[in-house]
Amino acid sequence: MAFSIPSIPPLDISAMQAARKRQSSLTKPEGSLGQLEELSIQLAGITGQHFPDLQRKAVVVMAADHGVSAEGVSAYPAEVTRQMVANFLAGGAAINVLARLAGAQVVVVDMGVAADLDEAPGLIRRKIARGTSNMSAGAAMTREQAEEALQTGVEVADGLIDSGVNLLASGDMGIGNTTPSSAITAVITDRPAAQVTGRGTGLGDEALARKVELIAKSITLNRPDPADALDVVSKVGGFEIAGLAGVMLGAAARRVPVVVDGFISGAAALIAAGLSPAVKPYLIAAHQSVEIGHKYLLEHLGLKPLLNLDLRLGEGTGAALAFPILEAACRILQEMATFDEAQVSHK
Amino acid sequence: MAFSIPSIPPLDISAMQAARKRQSSLTKPEGSLGQLEELSIQLAGITGQHFPDLQRKAVVVMAADHGVSAEGVSAYPAEVTRQMVANFLAGGAAINVLARLAGAQVVVVDMGVAADLDEAPGLIRRKIARGTSNMSAGAAMTREQAEEALQTGVEVADGLIDSGVNLLASGDMGIGNTTPSSAITAVITDRPAAQVTGRGTGLGDEALARKVELIAKSITLNRPDPADALDVVSKVGGFEIAGLAGVMLGAAARRVPVVVDGFISGAAALIAAGLSPAVKPYLIAAHQSVEIGHKYLLEHLGLKPLLNLDLRLGEGTGAALAFPILEAACRILQEMATFDEAQVSHK
Repeated sequence: MAFSIPSIPPLDISAMQAARKRQSSLTKPEGSLGQLEELSIQLAGITGQHFPDLQRKAVVVMAADHGVSAEGVSAYPAEVTRQMVANFLAGGAAINVLARLAGAQVVVVDMGVAADLDEAPGLIRRKIARGTSNMSAGAAMTREQAEEALQTGVEVADGLIDSGVNLLASGDMGIGNTTPSSAITAVITDRPAAQVTGRGTGLGDEALARKVELIAKSITLNRPDPADALDVVSKVGGFEIAGLAGVMLGAAARRVPVVVDGFISGAAALIAAGLSPAVKPYLIAAHQSVEIGHKYLLEHLGLKPLLNLDLRLGEGTGAALAFPILEAACRILQEMATFDEAQVSHK
Repeated sequence: MAFSIPSIPPLDISAMQAARKRQSSLTKPEGSLGQLEELSIQLAGITGQHFPDLQRKAVVVMAADHGVSAEGVSAYPAEVTRQMVANFLAGGAAINVLARLAGAQVVVVDMGVAADLDEAPGLIRRKIARGTSNMSAGAAMTREQAEEALQTGVEVADGLIDSGVNLLASGDMGIGNTTPSSAITAVITDRPAAQVTGRGTGLGDEALARKVELIAKSITLNRPDPADALDVVSKVGGFEIAGLAGVMLGAAARRVPVVVDGFISGAAALIAAGLSPAVKPYLIAAHQSVEIGHKYLLEHLGLKPLLNLDLRLGEGTGAALAFPILEAACRILQEMATFDEAQVSHK
């Protein structure tokens, strides 16, 4: 499957001007709703709508396994990826709870779980392979596999948008996947592995030191080219990471905003922005993760997170928590009275 | 009307232990939902329920005028207090929009607006006086008026809780009310006025300098006793601030959590905690305000804000934005599957 980067339009300046003008006419001191006001203007620019409609929300949770997890980089066994997919489909995981609360559907995509998954409602089966190869012994995947994963992401976004979805969030599941995410962050932000590698689901000091070493070794061995994001994601990435990058590109091409969850989704955003910088204004950073590489990654992308709740779960949980803030931004724009309407004296 | 501080029980330790234990059994790495997990444990302790129910939410918006506004401490004319009350009652203000989105009712209390307000649905008329006196020329109110305002707050909380409300948020409206809030913060946190005084709704540099001077002068003139919160709020406070302190004390006495909005609500929390430190664990700081005194105030109270969205509007808007996070914390506790239920391998 060949992959061609979808064309992404610039934000709609006239919709942004209209939103900015309306914000200054509403019954509140100008700028007093801070990031909520900026967000409403951004969402107008993304959608091209003066009053953005983001009622139909979906969280895309992409799942895959990682060859590198054989090296003991996670506190959990690899079988947990498959078990958690079952938990997602049964509605019992954190993302199910938070998506229900936000009125969003959860779509689970098997991008490369190392087990056969039966057909099930809510599951899209697009397995590239049963897990990546061990990146500390060679490339995690072939360039063709990376293209296939990206293309899958674009198609998943397209399918959801065709069905009426107008707000997407990215989520991930993959035991071991903070390791490729740290590797991607190290390569693209040009920082040493130690600076961008954290404890994931809960490593101790020794295991963390081994993880840092392994990432450094994988980078030295594979020599990913920071200027070629496809090279980076194929050599030290993961199928769910490449897939989520595709989702971001596909959504942006259709003028649909993407709420980017935490560290793994952030690594996917680095890949997406590496392939097409035009994707950046379509991305909304949900939260600041505890994972230490996340802040450098957000800095590199120029994204300011909406929440800072010491989260480090993934699955799209931070993104689902941010949904009400996006909805609030749109409702303020649409529903508040103006100074004139409410007969309130202006400054 | 005499005021006696309501008795506030300690948090329910056994409910907290049960919540903590359940959090560690749910299908996620322990602690990976960060502040959401801590919040669920706190809410269990507050309510005494293993699965806290916070479905019936209300935002109490207390409104009053301030004699000191005659000194030009606000970018808006004092008549805006009355006009905004009308806007609240018509449903067109930011707090109406955000409360609707969160499924919360808005209750407006006239604590001391400098105009006669007609009876209206959603308005509780408990005017203490038509605005406070100018604190830069003497005490803002008498000690008796402060007691009456506090007692009113307790009664408003009681009335709402009697009607079934199980989650409260504080909100304020009062042109000029960052001035008494800064004065209260300066006195209680023992900091110079300049350090805790900000631009409010949008003062320029010169007006800000005058505001700082005016606050310093008011404190020197009135000599509020930092160890006597009733003395502080009567000399340099406001009717809505004293009222909100009463709401917090009344809610805590009934084991109902209070989401504390921004700077003005925070000043009320300083008064409430000064009267009864037992109120503190019942308070949840909604957000970090742009107003510079707010961080010192939160530090003094030992509260960590949930949001940081550069808000500076008041009305309870930050609190309403935080409601979904509290609801998320409760839902996670109640709805997530355990490792055993979902047959997911534990660490």
